[in-house]
Amino acid sequence: MTKTILLKQRPVGSPTLSDFELRTTETEMNLATGEMLLESTYISVDPYLRGRMSDAKSYVAPFEVGKPLHSGVVAKVINSQHNNFKEGDFVSGMLDWKTKQISNGDGLLKVDGEKAPLSAYLGILGMTGLTAYLGLTQIGKPKAGETLVVSGAAGAVGSVVGQIGKILGLKVIGIAGTDEKVTMLTSEFGFDHAINYNSTDDMVAALKTACPNGVDIYFDNVGGPISDAVLFNINQFARIINCGAISVYNNTEVPKSISVQPFLVKNSALMQGFIVSNYAEKFPEAMKQLSIWLGEGKLTYTETVVDGFENTPQAFLDLFDGKNKGKMIVKV
Amino acid sequence: MTKTILLKQRPVGSPTLSDFELRTTETEMNLATGEMLLESTYISVDPYLRGRMSDAKSYVAPFEVGKPLHSGVVAKVINSQHNNFKEGDFVSGMLDWKTKQISNGDGLLKVDGEKAPLSAYLGILGMTGLTAYLGLTQIGKPKAGETLVVSGAAGAVGSVVGQIGKILGLKVIGIAGTDEKVTMLTSEFGFDHAINYNSTDDMVAALKTACPNGVDIYFDNVGGPISDAVLFNINQFARIINCGAISVYNNTEVPKSISVQPFLVKNSALMQGFIVSNYAEKFPEAMKQLSIWLGEGKLTYTETVVDGFENTPQAFLDLFDGKNKGKMIVKV
Repeated sequence: MTKTILLKQRPVGSPTLSDFELRTTETEMNLATGEMLLESTYISVDPYLRGRMSDAKSYVAPFEVGKPLHSGVVAKVINSQHNNFKEGDFVSGMLDWKTKQISNGDGLLKVDGEKAPLSAYLGILGMTGLTAYLGLTQIGKPKAGETLVVSGAAGAVGSVVGQIGKILGLKVIGIAGTDEKVTMLTSEFGFDHAINYNSTDDMVAALKTACPNGVDIYFDNVGGPISDAVLFNINQFARIINCGAISVYNNTEVPKSISVQPFLVKNSALMQGFIVSNYAEKFPEAMKQLSIWLGEGKLTYTETVVDGFENTPQAFLDLFDGKNKGKMIVKV
Repeated sequence: MTKTILLKQRPVGSPTLSDFELRTTETEMNLATGEMLLESTYISVDPYLRGRMSDAKSYVAPFEVGKPLHSGVVAKVINSQHNNFKEGDFVSGMLDWKTKQISNGDGLLKVDGEKAPLSAYLGILGMTGLTAYLGLTQIGKPKAGETLVVSGAAGAVGSVVGQIGKILGLKVIGIAGTDEKVTMLTSEFGFDHAINYNSTDDMVAALKTACPNGVDIYFDNVGGPISDAVLFNINQFARIINCGAISVYNNTEVPKSISVQPFLVKNSALMQGFIVSNYAEKFPEAMKQLSIWLGEGKLTYTETVVDGFENTPQAFLDLFDGKNKGKMIVKV
């Protein structure tokens, strides 16, 4: 049997379990030439999926109501009529939220569980790592000695951004929402300093103390009031990477913030929306660098692994409550 | 006698005449070697000066209370002990708001009243033209056929931006605050379409109608709600040049707008604060191009010339009420 998770209805505001539907069907077994049957091993849940659940104009087509959701998945080939993939291989790519599915291999990469744990291909050696590396280097253009602030720092992307910042010689300050996360950032991930925004009254002042030389690069995963506070501390020629805005994804009204324009004008600063898929030509180089650093032990990562395919929607919802540390993954 | 205008006190909110002081003193006449005595001919008043009247952190040092203000000035050499400048020459550069002053020539350029009217060196062949040309080309990176929106379009910079946009093959939409200005944009400056924001209820919809293919480049001189409306219409990979934010310069509280981050993320869009002085190495090339276009009759410009040195503060205040069409200049 095959289990599938579909989008039952478009969420309004914060998504709930009732927006999803679990369906069980007979497994399709008939493979045409060039096809293979895959069994999902790990499924990635990510904040950006929220955007695709709405039908607003965005950089990718929205999910369709009544159709399976999909995201990054690591799967095992259990039957193959495809020349490049054989039974027992593992692949990674964008696949449906299904326990089993047929694929023609388009957009799938073979991954090697000997070189790194399979789940890493959804995280540090997947879109997460690529997003962190390419966002920081391509837009942030870091120079050793500069100050980097990362919001959502204990999340999948943020924790990698901070570590890469340290490798590149930056002073790195992380912002996260619990004391436990803040401790993890400095003790496990080597951040110079971390701030718990939930226990800090005056974020502008806290950032000023943590960044006495001002902020040169801001890797922004959250948007909202935290990002406003960072703006008060940016330096001339600051670069702000807008990688995500999880704080406002569930808003039903257009969210308000301070006006960024005067800050950008005063500081000749840059803000740029970053979507990793626009940098596909840099993926091989980035993967190579990330693998080297991982092999050298310079990069570490944390995963929050949720057990059971049926729990995929809940794992997704938990992202918005910050229940994950590092990459949130479902073990099928 | 020499008349000088000083900053009497830092304006709070909107500046008023009482923030300025006119002082009359004996003219200093004793020139050291390498110095010259200048008599001001034209003085430029510009919105950005408002920022320098506050003592907030900014890209240039604030004006000092009790000291003369200064800005772009065209002046005549009336006595010279300087090797490179002789009596009768005209020069342009950043000078004090004084009818007469001594200079050592630092940062001054000789200008030729035969090639273009002297006042043009404060406008289309000065910082105004350079700002328009370099902002649009260096950050906007225009490609023929794209759609350009310009706010503050009837202002000094905006009217030049739109004309350069047309020369470069863009579709150009201007936003201004009176019917007279809107008419001027399409009839005199060749904009494809112009919108009067004061008589338009729904700017988002008006822009959607005017820009059926969306907005690729937004040259933003104003910030505030007008810029919010543009954000709803930007395309993927849009470039937003933050050249000024006149709508909020006089705010005493930090102004609020919609959150730009989700718009930038969704569209992989860029916003960049633009200060022309950061592009000084491009000035010669830009001046050459602007002179060619001016000579070919492809660029035209409008000036609002206010008579009398004493009226310089009032001319500056009038900028914030949009009383100028094109470049605001004081004839001394």
